[in-house]
Amino acid sequence: MPSPPQPPRHLNLGAALLARNDALAAQLRGRFTTARLPVVNLLSSPGSGKTALLERLGAHLNAAGRRAAVIVGDLATDNDARRLQAAGLTAVQITTGQACHLEAAMVERALEALPQPLEGFDLLLIENVGNLVCPAAYDLGESRRLVLLSVTEGEDKPLKYPAMFRSADLVVISKVDLLAATGFDLQHARHHIARVAPQAQVLEVSARTGAGMAQLCGLL
Amino acid sequence: MPSPPQPPRHLNLGAALLARNDALAAQLRGRFTTARLPVVNLLSSPGSGKTALLERLGAHLNAAGRRAAVIVGDLATDNDARRLQAAGLTAVQITTGQACHLEAAMVERALEALPQPLEGFDLLLIENVGNLVCPAAYDLGESRRLVLLSVTEGEDKPLKYPAMFRSADLVVISKVDLLAATGFDLQHARHHIARVAPQAQVLEVSARTGAGMAQLCGLL
Repeated sequence: MPSPPQPPRHLNLGAALLARNDALAAQLRGRFTTARLPVVNLLSSPGSGKTALLERLGAHLNAAGRRAAVIVGDLATDNDARRLQAAGLTAVQITTGQACHLEAAMVERALEALPQPLEGFDLLLIENVGNLVCPAAYDLGESRRLVLLSVTEGEDKPLKYPAMFRSADLVVISKVDLLAATGFDLQHARHHIARVAPQAQVLEVSARTGAGMAQLCGLL
Repeated sequence: MPSPPQPPRHLNLGAALLARNDALAAQLRGRFTTARLPVVNLLSSPGSGKTALLERLGAHLNAAGRRAAVIVGDLATDNDARRLQAAGLTAVQITTGQACHLEAAMVERALEALPQPLEGFDLLLIENVGNLVCPAAYDLGESRRLVLLSVTEGEDKPLKYPAMFRSADLVVISKVDLLAATGFDLQHARHHIARVAPQAQVLEVSARTGAGMAQLCGLL
């Protein structure tokens, strides 16, 4: 009978890869700081509304005369970059193939595809692969982490995916226009977020109606 | 400057672990076949309604005098096993900690916690970790793969997570009671599923209203 997977060997290699990622992320953070460029790492399940939020954010930022760039990660397709470009944002797509998360090395390569210098931008948004598990472990050199929780997903997700929510600076409860239709209990969800991620600010937003968008813009 | 991660070494170790998982999954499949036990691997994003679907399914199966067991995976909490036990199912929780997917070795251990012999059950359902990427690569010895796509997630998910949908025997479009509220385009979604997963049967279901549940029961 084959023996079960050997965690120590796997974890050691994982730790080495993470340490290498962290070192590169620290370099990127230095570069962003020098360019006075705030960088937001945007994380959530698939279909929580990351791209819709960025489209709406793009309109707000354009109206305010701010210039934002987006690096967007997906396993396949460049649909999101095309959507974001149509919303007036400068967008670069990373297609990861099999990889379930973005890494600092991917971000470093994507930066080359942005108009230089980085000082020309007021904000860099990184839309991660839709996944509430793996991307939590990978520092991309960001200044803030924004984790989306859609009201369609249920109030218990912070408890079930604690590593992700624990790493958040800001939790955005998205699609609040669907509150009534889904029966999502906001108080219950805020209680779970406060328990797992007491450090995180919490904001309620609807990209469809625009509720909460001005406040989110102000925060970023 | 640190060099980027070395994919070959990583992938070779990954391939070795996958081969070991496949060997154990083949053993489990043999055991399930001997016990004449159909096994369904249930996969989706977080919050697509896997547990709600199983609760509803439990009621249908109990009414039909069928005995079903569930093995349910989450990073943390045993909320789902408790929900499923309350719905009259025999449920065993696996908490994976950091692991973003179930593996055959975890299923093998969970089987020990089920009432023996396995012949006493008519159906075994395995609810995987909520993740549209990593669990696709891990065979659990199942006879069928059921992938859920919630109407709240958008029609493009089959194109963005092709490996997962390509591996499906059955795609269940869930939460169809929210079709009007979300503006989800069923025809568009079915077109994308047919493109990525032409082998898959497609079914529309609402665990809330019960629509499609009898048909799903019949299929399983």
